[in-house]
Amino acid sequence: MELAGIFHHPFSADAYVYDKETMHLKLRTKKKDIAEVLLIWGDPYLFKKNESGEYHWQYEQLTMTKVTETEAHDYWFAEVRPPHRRLQYAFLLTDLDGNHIFYGGRGFYPPNEDTLNVPDYYFKFPFMHGTDMFKAPEWVKSTVWYQIFPERFANGNPDISPKNALPWGSKDPGVNDFFGGDLQGIIDHLDYLSDLGINGIYLTPIFEAPSNHKYDTIDYFAIDPHFGDKETFRKLVKEAHKRGIRIMLDAVFNHIGKNSKQWQDVLKNEENSIYKDWFHIHSFPVREGENGNIDGQDTLSFDTFAFTTSMPKLNTANPEVQKYLLDIATYWIREFDIDGWRLDVANEVDHTFWKTFHQTVVKEKPDLFILGEIWHDSWPWLLGDEFHSVMNYPFTQTISEYFVEEKISAEKMMYSINQQFMHYMKSNNEVLFNMLDSHDTPRILTKCGGDKQKAKLALAFMFAHTGTPCIYYGTEVGIDGGADPLCRKCMVWEEDKQDHDMLTFMKKLIRFRKDYQSTLTYGDLIWLKNENDKEVICFLRKDKNHTLLFAFNRSAAEQSIPWSDLNVDNSNSVKNIWENKPVQEDILVLAPKQFTILEIIN
Amino acid sequence: MELAGIFHHPFSADAYVYDKETMHLKLRTKKKDIAEVLLIWGDPYLFKKNESGEYHWQYEQLTMTKVTETEAHDYWFAEVRPPHRRLQYAFLLTDLDGNHIFYGGRGFYPPNEDTLNVPDYYFKFPFMHGTDMFKAPEWVKSTVWYQIFPERFANGNPDISPKNALPWGSKDPGVNDFFGGDLQGIIDHLDYLSDLGINGIYLTPIFEAPSNHKYDTIDYFAIDPHFGDKETFRKLVKEAHKRGIRIMLDAVFNHIGKNSKQWQDVLKNEENSIYKDWFHIHSFPVREGENGNIDGQDTLSFDTFAFTTSMPKLNTANPEVQKYLLDIATYWIREFDIDGWRLDVANEVDHTFWKTFHQTVVKEKPDLFILGEIWHDSWPWLLGDEFHSVMNYPFTQTISEYFVEEKISAEKMMYSINQQFMHYMKSNNEVLFNMLDSHDTPRILTKCGGDKQKAKLALAFMFAHTGTPCIYYGTEVGIDGGADPLCRKCMVWEEDKQDHDMLTFMKKLIRFRKDYQSTLTYGDLIWLKNENDKEVICFLRKDKNHTLLFAFNRSAAEQSIPWSDLNVDNSNSVKNIWENKPVQEDILVLAPKQFTILEIIN
Repeated sequence: MELAGIFHHPFSADAYVYDKETMHLKLRTKKKDIAEVLLIWGDPYLFKKNESGEYHWQYEQLTMTKVTETEAHDYWFAEVRPPHRRLQYAFLLTDLDGNHIFYGGRGFYPPNEDTLNVPDYYFKFPFMHGTDMFKAPEWVKSTVWYQIFPERFANGNPDISPKNALPWGSKDPGVNDFFGGDLQGIIDHLDYLSDLGINGIYLTPIFEAPSNHKYDTIDYFAIDPHFGDKETFRKLVKEAHKRGIRIMLDAVFNHIGKNSKQWQDVLKNEENSIYKDWFHIHSFPVREGENGNIDGQDTLSFDTFAFTTSMPKLNTANPEVQKYLLDIATYWIREFDIDGWRLDVANEVDHTFWKTFHQTVVKEKPDLFILGEIWHDSWPWLLGDEFHSVMNYPFTQTISEYFVEEKISAEKMMYSINQQFMHYMKSNNEVLFNMLDSHDTPRILTKCGGDKQKAKLALAFMFAHTGTPCIYYGTEVGIDGGADPLCRKCMVWEEDKQDHDMLTFMKKLIRFRKDYQSTLTYGDLIWLKNENDKEVICFLRKDKNHTLLFAFNRSAAEQSIPWSDLNVDNSNSVKNIWENKPVQEDILVLAPKQFTILEIIN
Repeated sequence: MELAGIFHHPFSADAYVYDKETMHLKLRTKKKDIAEVLLIWGDPYLFKKNESGEYHWQYEQLTMTKVTETEAHDYWFAEVRPPHRRLQYAFLLTDLDGNHIFYGGRGFYPPNEDTLNVPDYYFKFPFMHGTDMFKAPEWVKSTVWYQIFPERFANGNPDISPKNALPWGSKDPGVNDFFGGDLQGIIDHLDYLSDLGINGIYLTPIFEAPSNHKYDTIDYFAIDPHFGDKETFRKLVKEAHKRGIRIMLDAVFNHIGKNSKQWQDVLKNEENSIYKDWFHIHSFPVREGENGNIDGQDTLSFDTFAFTTSMPKLNTANPEVQKYLLDIATYWIREFDIDGWRLDVANEVDHTFWKTFHQTVVKEKPDLFILGEIWHDSWPWLLGDEFHSVMNYPFTQTISEYFVEEKISAEKMMYSINQQFMHYMKSNNEVLFNMLDSHDTPRILTKCGGDKQKAKLALAFMFAHTGTPCIYYGTEVGIDGGADPLCRKCMVWEEDKQDHDMLTFMKKLIRFRKDYQSTLTYGDLIWLKNENDKEVICFLRKDKNHTLLFAFNRSAAEQSIPWSDLNVDNSNSVKNIWENKPVQEDILVLAPKQFTILEIIN
């Protein structure tokens, strides 16, 4: 038995309260090393007398299920409902050679009665508190998101466009170009979005700022005048809500813009500025060009986003700054009824601030959604007291490595997806913000080298998985574009320039997601077959209502999988719910670069 | 290379801010599998142009040190000071066969230039925030604690003793006996404690409660009348402070006593009680004897401590209860200047409450010490926003298993200690509350079957380690006693009944601890030799000021260790700082069941 590969951490995604009655428990072991895992569990205070009159701890036994595997590990899972919400537990492992061991809070012990009777040897989950439990707003689970970069979506009010605005779509955007997109433009196209099927809009920043992206805020309490005014924004929220569409804004709280009155005051008054403690200043002067303060250099005398002097970092440990930012957060909820905050560069702001932020906004609106921009492992932000979700870039990367760059095998892709699923709580996974691209990455179509079929495979794969999908504006009409600024092209509204095949595809995918949302949110993920050579992956999404079979063929050749290889009972009805095509009894045929979705009805 | 044994979790004791400039990083690998680990680290935003004009991420390399081993793993350690407080990092491992691998936030990759240039493959510690950093009060590190069970320490005011109080020490205590110990008794013996050398007192509960242990609180705002009044308590704190002794009280916030006005109101008014939401009531009535409410049974219709009907569990999610408990917490700080709160059954109260508790009490007194009663792994409470320390029972258990029960080998003991040290941050370990016994366990002397020499070995071992030692009242005069109630005997004050040899020993040990406190708090722990057969363990505690060599002989025979086996340079001066004895040049001789402490002066 490989002891070095056995791991369980009692306060992590390995042991958590899933709902008020239910605990989820996971154990990791070296791959293909362990044959059986028994969970020993009970209330820590329950003892019973045995025949000799001695008290023994009263426990139950449950066989854990091997749920998944990664490159190096197997994962075992069990669900228990402790009647008194207190849990003491350990694992009894048997390896493939028949060796046994007891694994608990104090490590490894021989699996005998003596061991089983020592409470100290067990793991503990002392009490299942509702207050400590991770809870995301229920509405998020059935949301299909649509990300809008307002300067490039639609120009609904040319009167307020920047003076230097270029004709809509007249060229590929440069870093400093303006095209006049605004909030009225979004309102004008709400019916279009409704028809597309999305029901959540994530808007990149709309507050007053000089740039076209507006991540360099001047005033968080003002709508940028080129985007509209508060009345227009109020109308946008109302009209969206009428159509069942939620609105999420972008909160840029890690840093402020250099043109803000606060930083301008510091630039003017240096150490005498009343705002000097609003920032992380290591030495004065902070003026551009002096004291090492040259944009992009690592010699800056104050903290910034990256080494960008136009984005001085806010000191969120300062109570004045906290109050300022929290007032902003509640203002837009209270006055305009927004539904979510997306938090920019969320990982570089302190946890202490985000915990207060969570309490504050949830008090203002209990079902407000908090989404963090974090590109990496986000475990510490997802415990329940900070964010509800993060932008799931690790998922994006895995899809990209497999479907787009084609640099990993089907097996490696499966391991990577599994690893991410195991890393978080199921309740986290259910609301993760999945996307293939954004204003910060090249567009999916360009990543695919213009191969639309590849992009469709990647999109369908994303829609098939747990978490909420987000479409970056224009994907549905075939917009392409490389890295920033090219990923921020003007939306194409002329019907003859839109890709209607793509639009039909996206509407169908969104419809499918809505029809099977519960299965796609909560259902198990069961990998059936991953053929590295054929470049085919097949998996089930399964709950008590539906059994969906997904099959993806990445290769440029037709591929056939005998049903007997899939280990799925297709003796009853199997229906192709994606295409209007009969399903062959003995073999599953996949056209080149195609996928299909079947429902197994037993 | 055993991939299944390689593990690093970026938000855990594997990667944390040790002080405002310093990050600590650890990596776990299968024991005796890996020859070298290189840490690759740098600022995530720093790139440099190479000769071909391409930008490459700018990183540094650092060889990690193998610091310790456990039953199944080796642990590697490195310390870095990221100039911009942002860290991106990964590990390059080489196994004993010369195989290499890259390990980062997305798993394992080939260790080539392509891999090294993909930021997504790295672990991230996005920003080192002072606000998020674990910080314990500085004074705790130099504290030697003394735990007092007030009913049994000294009777300083017979006028307030319970009517049924028994003559002091007239018998072994029964569960419900009273002997009249009180606060004046403690004041009367502060000089004794000062002379003993301790400088922190932990008092079990002193608030109004019917039992002798007072864990069944009636009124948290009143001193129990048999213990004294507020003026006596104020005097106790003042007199203790005069002598440089800190006072820590016991907060029983998991549950209240059944005689409290709140629970009495519920018993009387049932579902109509204004206090019904102060508790976790599943169904009414809650009256004793009805609706399954029989003490000790698992059929209770409300939550309690264990299944004890006299201790109904408080609903700390109720804002009224929160306010009530927080008012208590601040009242005793503000009005009486106490120095610490020990939190009873702390693991069964919600984290949300403890975070608010932390903010509230630290605001009232910035260097107030918060100690949780937790018997098991306490990681989630020690992140910096809940407790400063916990009662370190896992350490107690390991010492007990080795020195007292003699059921584990020297090697197993070492692994167990190492595991615990690796499991927490160094900053946690520095202030862990170490003890061998308490009012909740048999006394150390009794655990040792009356073998005083064994007890001395265990005590000295505890004092040699990182963390703050606590002596349970009376240990220093040789008091024994089995499990509760026998571990709560009256303190022995008659000099002719005290064990003077033990008293001298304890004073010497405390003196030693104070003389070398900094080395014992911060110094490295370096195991030299653990001879399972000879039952000998030798280790160093070492910092820049001192190198201390500890050697423990558990066996009943004299044991000799050749200096050449110890791998310690003793060519210069070696001084026996524990006994007035010369040190032999070639061999270290240990008498049966003895230990020694040497200082190596180079």
